[in-house]
Amino acid sequence: MSYTLEREDLADLARGAALLGTGGGGDPYIGRLLVEQALREGDGKITVLDPSDLRDDDLVIPTAQMGAPTVVVEKIPHGDEPVAALRALEERLGRRADATMPIECGGINSMIPLLVAARTGLPVVDADGMGRAFPELQMETFSVYGVPGSPLAIGGENGETVIIDTGADNKRMEWLARGVTIRLGGVAHIAEYAMSGAEVRRTAVPNTLTLGLRIGRALRTARERHGDFIEALAGALEGSGYDNIRVLFRGKVVDVERRTVGGFARGHATFAAFDGPERLELTFQNENLVARVDGEVRCVVPDLICVLEAETGEPITTEGLRYGQRAVVVGISTPELMRTPEALAVFGPRAFGLDVEFEPVERLVSP
Amino acid sequence: MSYTLEREDLADLARGAALLGTGGGGDPYIGRLLVEQALREGDGKITVLDPSDLRDDDLVIPTAQMGAPTVVVEKIPHGDEPVAALRALEERLGRRADATMPIECGGINSMIPLLVAARTGLPVVDADGMGRAFPELQMETFSVYGVPGSPLAIGGENGETVIIDTGADNKRMEWLARGVTIRLGGVAHIAEYAMSGAEVRRTAVPNTLTLGLRIGRALRTARERHGDFIEALAGALEGSGYDNIRVLFRGKVVDVERRTVGGFARGHATFAAFDGPERLELTFQNENLVARVDGEVRCVVPDLICVLEAETGEPITTEGLRYGQRAVVVGISTPELMRTPEALAVFGPRAFGLDVEFEPVERLVSP
Repeated sequence: MSYTLEREDLADLARGAALLGTGGGGDPYIGRLLVEQALREGDGKITVLDPSDLRDDDLVIPTAQMGAPTVVVEKIPHGDEPVAALRALEERLGRRADATMPIECGGINSMIPLLVAARTGLPVVDADGMGRAFPELQMETFSVYGVPGSPLAIGGENGETVIIDTGADNKRMEWLARGVTIRLGGVAHIAEYAMSGAEVRRTAVPNTLTLGLRIGRALRTARERHGDFIEALAGALEGSGYDNIRVLFRGKVVDVERRTVGGFARGHATFAAFDGPERLELTFQNENLVARVDGEVRCVVPDLICVLEAETGEPITTEGLRYGQRAVVVGISTPELMRTPEALAVFGPRAFGLDVEFEPVERLVSP
Repeated sequence: MSYTLEREDLADLARGAALLGTGGGGDPYIGRLLVEQALREGDGKITVLDPSDLRDDDLVIPTAQMGAPTVVVEKIPHGDEPVAALRALEERLGRRADATMPIECGGINSMIPLLVAARTGLPVVDADGMGRAFPELQMETFSVYGVPGSPLAIGGENGETVIIDTGADNKRMEWLARGVTIRLGGVAHIAEYAMSGAEVRRTAVPNTLTLGLRIGRALRTARERHGDFIEALAGALEGSGYDNIRVLFRGKVVDVERRTVGGFARGHATFAAFDGPERLELTFQNENLVARVDGEVRCVVPDLICVLEAETGEPITTEGLRYGQRAVVVGISTPELMRTPEALAVFGPRAFGLDVEFEPVERLVSP
């Protein structure tokens, strides 16, 4: 179902996107402010387009921010950059876009296509290429199922544009785009994986904007009513394909090690249990990759590992992790599209250099 | 005067270009082999076009290699890359080139446009944008006198292309292109500073290919006749605008410190005099930047500092410097076009972070 996104929806969507970002994707707060500003300046409406409402030959150009989340919180975009990237790619392709779309539904990248929509009047397709957030551009269902990411356009803060074309090699595209992003100061805005409406339906994870909105609403409502936010979250996920939720740990952050290296935020966080000697160790590269309790894997990428504030249920991103925070760590299963052998080859644990086999969270942890 | 370059000229041109490279620009030997191969495969002729023979509205697209000379000697191009860069830029501009041109007359970049010419049939303009070699892309007389370097096209070894557009900001263009070059393994091929025939005549250093050829011939002839190669060099430079030559030092290499950092070969070399306690210290960033004898500046960029083998007069590049080499270090004055305040602001000593004022070599050292 297509619908109009209201300004009042943005805070809920940002909250849900922070959860789907599994610690990464960049804090959606800044993105939300940019969208609100664009809505105030424009006609105040964003159309969310159901993938089934796309024509087969519509041109969809996804837009996004790329960079280390640790930099994103310090280097605020002025808002023209993703539109400049879109326009540069349109010029290269010799055709105007009929819609934009998120490449990932987690973090700030749920907001960037809304910003583009608010500024250009284009609709936003209710789907994405990660079903969560991942740190690298080849880690897209678009790529897994055969859509080339090239040509990719980058828009910089001073009006620079860069077009990268690596043919069908999306990993090489990521490598070069990351190099440019580092040189632009650690954050840049991109347009890539231009595709037809038919390709969206074949390769994208559907209705993830709406899922983010539903999750954000459920978490807020639970808080307002002093209800159980884990239960509310389970309710919001029901029937979405993200069907299993497991509490992995309840405890306090006792250590965070975080470095911005090679254009990524990499590191570890350790949590000590509230009521026992157990410890959970979280490893991340922008996003949370693996959660181990006393050395045993409890949840691993691409399943979602989400850290929520223990009192409020508010998602905490990796760059927001602080000593002393009280948190609940939950694992959430991802849709089957993201767990096929082809998908795991691109964004399973080994793609991140982890010496771990993928095992579904619903089998690793009992309900 | 326009003329046809013969295959037999290439060794002399490479030798002269190594001298004009002032230690950098990349060893022209590999470039020469690529040009010879292309000539064998094609129709065997390269037209060297005098700038005065260009029409005002001809489109000239300079082509070059960029990267650290220390990498260039290990990572041999297959020869398609600069043509791919040229074609990518033509496509972006929507117009075919009428000629190519060197961006620098020193080192391998005297050869890359010849390679493009041999492969495409385009003529090569007998001029360049540095009158020597410099390490960075904004250090061009083209840039000094108002030609934008953007859009710049990069061709990688796997057929990747990257287009960078930073408007009038040529320093930013260099910064981004260097980042991409590092990601491509430290060496890449580029097309940039597309300009009209009229702009070539206004901004380029004229007839530097021919000068390189003349220098290379003079050095070879002196060696064959057991003559004085310094005298021969002075003769070749006469009337070229590079009118003053000074012997700065005669001695042995006693120390070389060289690192490949930030995409450049940076370092120092120390020479001990044959006949006394004096030492010459050479500082380089790809190219030789400043020569000091016992702490006193004897020659500084943009004047040429050239290291020649003491016995043969063969130029030695920075990546070729070895302990124990016996050498003559000479300083050569550059044309007035390269010594104006505008030019010195872009490629004078302070542009390299050196705390030295420019002083012409003919005033620093007596004949």
